[in-house]
Amino acid sequence: MSDAPQPRPEDPTVEQLGEFELIDALTASFEQGEQVLVGPGDDAAVLRIRTGHVVVSTDMLVEGRHFRRDWVPARDVGHRAAAQNLSDINAMGGRAHSLTIGMAVPADLPVAWATEFAEGFAEECRAVGASVVGGDVTRGDQLVVSVTVLGACTVAPVLRGGAEAGDVLALAGRQGWAAGGLAVLGRGFRSPRVLVEAYRRPAPPYDAGPEAAAAGATAMIDVSDGLLSEAGHLARASGVRIDVRTETLEVPEPLHAVAAATGSDPLRYVLGGGDDHALLATFPDAGSVPAGWTVIGAVSQGEGVTVDGAPYDGPTGWTAF
Amino acid sequence: MSDAPQPRPEDPTVEQLGEFELIDALTASFEQGEQVLVGPGDDAAVLRIRTGHVVVSTDMLVEGRHFRRDWVPARDVGHRAAAQNLSDINAMGGRAHSLTIGMAVPADLPVAWATEFAEGFAEECRAVGASVVGGDVTRGDQLVVSVTVLGACTVAPVLRGGAEAGDVLALAGRQGWAAGGLAVLGRGFRSPRVLVEAYRRPAPPYDAGPEAAAAGATAMIDVSDGLLSEAGHLARASGVRIDVRTETLEVPEPLHAVAAATGSDPLRYVLGGGDDHALLATFPDAGSVPAGWTVIGAVSQGEGVTVDGAPYDGPTGWTAF
Repeated sequence: MSDAPQPRPEDPTVEQLGEFELIDALTASFEQGEQVLVGPGDDAAVLRIRTGHVVVSTDMLVEGRHFRRDWVPARDVGHRAAAQNLSDINAMGGRAHSLTIGMAVPADLPVAWATEFAEGFAEECRAVGASVVGGDVTRGDQLVVSVTVLGACTVAPVLRGGAEAGDVLALAGRQGWAAGGLAVLGRGFRSPRVLVEAYRRPAPPYDAGPEAAAAGATAMIDVSDGLLSEAGHLARASGVRIDVRTETLEVPEPLHAVAAATGSDPLRYVLGGGDDHALLATFPDAGSVPAGWTVIGAVSQGEGVTVDGAPYDGPTGWTAF
Repeated sequence: MSDAPQPRPEDPTVEQLGEFELIDALTASFEQGEQVLVGPGDDAAVLRIRTGHVVVSTDMLVEGRHFRRDWVPARDVGHRAAAQNLSDINAMGGRAHSLTIGMAVPADLPVAWATEFAEGFAEECRAVGASVVGGDVTRGDQLVVSVTVLGACTVAPVLRGGAEAGDVLALAGRQGWAAGGLAVLGRGFRSPRVLVEAYRRPAPPYDAGPEAAAAGATAMIDVSDGLLSEAGHLARASGVRIDVRTETLEVPEPLHAVAAATGSDPLRYVLGGGDDHALLATFPDAGSVPAGWTVIGAVSQGEGVTVDGAPYDGPTGWTAF
């Protein structure tokens, strides 16, 4: 069922092209914003910082673990790699401005894969006005992509530890779609296409983070691993109990078909799924929740996460080991 | 001849420990400097930036390609991974203040390896006053470390492209020692110990970069791959010819023993060797070269790199493919 493009015999590999030519081919995709004083090609990049602070985060993607070349085209892996990192700045209430990419690439990787990856990465960055300012490429047995993203906040960053009893819990962005798409791909299918596309190319709500920060969000996190596991991080960091109310959660229509085919509850994809890079935040009251956010639960004294007031026995998220 | 410590049966692996416990074990080594407003543990770190700019660089290390666990103890791999990145900021004339680490780790990696790596990494960072502010750990087939370093300059950054005909070429720091040590290890020996130690734990001249920038260096690069190949980068970026004069190069005494054992010219290690993270820079004249630097050549009109006025036929450096 693989629809991965087969390399044509004339497609050169990264080994045939060589290190410096590969770097040139990749950086050709990367436009430099006005904050970039020195871009790719020197020992380091130099960025103008007007805000007095930098928000910085690093994420790694490993082939076979975070993506499969036969499930996701190179361009979409690029989108996902960028989105996953841009989302971390979003979750602080900031906007990303600059990124670096480190890549370990197998010698037989087609150059076309690498350049299409770079194009998708650049497209996702362009959507938020961020620049790829540098990186590193080396040979490895396994394809590994490491991204570092730098950004800025216009108000104080929103951390995980600020939720208080009495706050409301709210969600912005699609949730459960990518998990449904992954389940579809895992069974060798390609439809419902809208879910597969959601997995291949997430659409994080990039404005929702800064808007939440400006509206006084007390804590925030992005849903990369699973809604309930991320809620657990908020609860632990804040020293509170969080209850998620399932009647408030939107179950996307195509998830019902997937759930029927797999004999499972569609809600499980919404509660345990990640990869959509939705945002989860707490606010002092429902009146302060901005447009684009939906109240899905409440914060109280105590610890841990409950669903409709009771412990949850399904999968809560993905772990790296 | 391996002197890698064998894991004891009771040593847990990273898989047994789990992702979040591993992150806790690693971050225990990382002290946070006064510029760190938010350190490890949230979606992103937040740094106070007083200078109006950030110098940023990313480098990857892949096991089997950039290091071998049976040749270099975990603590020293940590020192090398940090040094290699700190050196990139040094080569801009800057000082590093913050770093992130991404690690892909095999499931059977002993936790002790990871924590000793982190301790060595933290020690090297502490030597320059920099903090490890965040990162990511995930599982991979091969051990891959990706480091991003952020720093600042007190004067304008020194780029690769500013050398002009009439400038002098100068070197700061040990050069050829690490290449000698690598040759020793590659033949299954462990002495001369001073060379092996130089390979395992480089000692970059961290003050030399900012001092060169303050003294008016016109171009600068760090010698990570090889003296002549880095000189080639300077020549190409600046549009000049660079000549290296071998009578000015110090050939460390222990290299003579290695060269005799391998039937080679010891100068080859100095000209083609990397990994010491020496600095190579150009200055307007010999009078402006600061203490700690040695004039080793000259810049003239033309292109390419020559040795004593003639083309060089030996190895000029290491490449990533």
